[in-house]
Amino acid sequence: MGAVIPLGDKKNRQASVQPLVDLTRSGMERVNQLILSKAGSDVQMIPEVANHLISSGGKRLRPMLTLASAAMFGYEGEGHIKLATSVEFMHTATLLHDDVVDESDLRRGKSTARMIWGNQASVLVGDFLLGQAFRMMVEVGSLEALDVLSSAASVIAEGEVLQLSVAKNMETTEDDYQSVIRAKTAALFAAAAEVGPIVAGTDKAARNALKSYGMNLGLAFQLVDDALDYGGKVADLGKNTGDDFREGKITLPVILAYRRGNEAERTFWREAIEGGKSDDANLEKAMGLITKYNGLSDTVARAVHYGDVARDALASVPGGEWKDALMDVIDFCIERVS
Amino acid sequence: MGAVIPLGDKKNRQASVQPLVDLTRSGMERVNQLILSKAGSDVQMIPEVANHLISSGGKRLRPMLTLASAAMFGYEGEGHIKLATSVEFMHTATLLHDDVVDESDLRRGKSTARMIWGNQASVLVGDFLLGQAFRMMVEVGSLEALDVLSSAASVIAEGEVLQLSVAKNMETTEDDYQSVIRAKTAALFAAAAEVGPIVAGTDKAARNALKSYGMNLGLAFQLVDDALDYGGKVADLGKNTGDDFREGKITLPVILAYRRGNEAERTFWREAIEGGKSDDANLEKAMGLITKYNGLSDTVARAVHYGDVARDALASVPGGEWKDALMDVIDFCIERVS
Repeated sequence: MGAVIPLGDKKNRQASVQPLVDLTRSGMERVNQLILSKAGSDVQMIPEVANHLISSGGKRLRPMLTLASAAMFGYEGEGHIKLATSVEFMHTATLLHDDVVDESDLRRGKSTARMIWGNQASVLVGDFLLGQAFRMMVEVGSLEALDVLSSAASVIAEGEVLQLSVAKNMETTEDDYQSVIRAKTAALFAAAAEVGPIVAGTDKAARNALKSYGMNLGLAFQLVDDALDYGGKVADLGKNTGDDFREGKITLPVILAYRRGNEAERTFWREAIEGGKSDDANLEKAMGLITKYNGLSDTVARAVHYGDVARDALASVPGGEWKDALMDVIDFCIERVS
Repeated sequence: MGAVIPLGDKKNRQASVQPLVDLTRSGMERVNQLILSKAGSDVQMIPEVANHLISSGGKRLRPMLTLASAAMFGYEGEGHIKLATSVEFMHTATLLHDDVVDESDLRRGKSTARMIWGNQASVLVGDFLLGQAFRMMVEVGSLEALDVLSSAASVIAEGEVLQLSVAKNMETTEDDYQSVIRAKTAALFAAAAEVGPIVAGTDKAARNALKSYGMNLGLAFQLVDDALDYGGKVADLGKNTGDDFREGKITLPVILAYRRGNEAERTFWREAIEGGKSDDANLEKAMGLITKYNGLSDTVARAVHYGDVARDALASVPGGEWKDALMDVIDFCIERVS
């Protein structure tokens, strides 16, 4: 099933990640080689666990952002390959730890590492990948890039703890939710896009443009992800519709339906999310209430808003095929929901 | 109860951490302030969890090593305060994750963070502290120090995974065990001692001397810790005698008793460690077998060996009160067991 999306009138190009994939193909081949090499260890369990997640078919949007944001400023060195790989490792480490924290069984339609190798291995291999990420950043030798990425690492963890502390609390506001997704998702998109101009040696204005692009793209991306959880297909998304509901996660579709609902409906939400009454019948009822109060379409409307901000952030940087590809990714992230 | 220790004849000074504590007092006050400040966050749960562990009365040996190893080369800047704090945060993050991995209830006689706030908070606050550690290192601006500490972060995680993969396997050799403690404990001691001469701008020989001192001190420290687990008092150690036994951890006292034992005794060890029959009666029997085969005294003999190597590593660096204090720490680490 699909949600109804108000796409606005700003869209004027194709909504596709393909131009970015094509432009970064040779760079991403080297990133993928480096991923396999740096996930290697004499300790056999490390590559097993790491490769399980690494080979699970994620789009690798974040490292592509790093490659593109360096190349668009004419960078011809090697550092962006290592930085892109670091970004992907930071993301992978977060996923490994998230699955432990969320007690998830499935990710992208496959068993999570923690279901196969246990929570212990997931925590520790995540730590290892984070360590390897920092080693690669250090090898690149840019203190500015290190500053951006190490700050992102702190902010991401802070966002995850914040998410934990608002979990199962129906009084969570949209602002609280925004703080969570800004920290846990958008901060890494922002850092991934900002380190490109840094290694390319551009001026501060270009850095800020790419950082803002990444931040707002990340917000749009997560908003759409959270909408998809109440309206996506497993095959599309690799996670099951209703996962967030069953885990008692407070996302924007739920916040909107709860706050716009009547007292009986609010009681339902409290029992479902705070009280754990999250069976299939209640999921169906929840989806009905979200639809009744335009929870999905208004979540996507927020995503469209951030997509617009991302587009304007890029407006000031020089045009060309790289910029066009980054623009297309904005629409791609939003239109996944249709 | 105490173990019988063959202390060798190399000991010629007091076995005390007090000279190091006295010399680093003003520096450690600033480290402690920085710890509190950098463990702060608007997300309330973060300082709560962090301070629980930070205030639990560890000796902070690792940051003292960093302060001393910078000061002994005449360093007069500020960077060693941040590096020492980073080292302590890396250690704290490891403890938070270890308690989750080991499913520990107590640490230093207090409930572990995971028992109070859950595994989730322990994983994520550990990640946050690691991120903060890297941010402080980046602020210091030494790529060499960053290289040493980020490499240590990878190696520590690798050692923890290795420990997991040899857990409850009675065929673990002393070499396997040594690989584990070298990675999970000694690598951070080595890094803590090496970054001092790095910020002080010394030559490579001094760096290597301090690195070797730290590595071998760390090995001695962990060997004695593992001996104490079969002969220490809770009040001394803050952990209960037999914790490692109950968790099925393979440490050197067990390896020696197993390998030196007869077939019936080996069967006992397999049932206890691999089969989980680790009640108090079996703990008593295990301690009897360890004593029978000199498991504790020979573990301490290994520690004495590494202490000697640490002492010789320092021999070539200039003498003075700092060097004397570091020498005293070697004996202190070993004689804790008596």
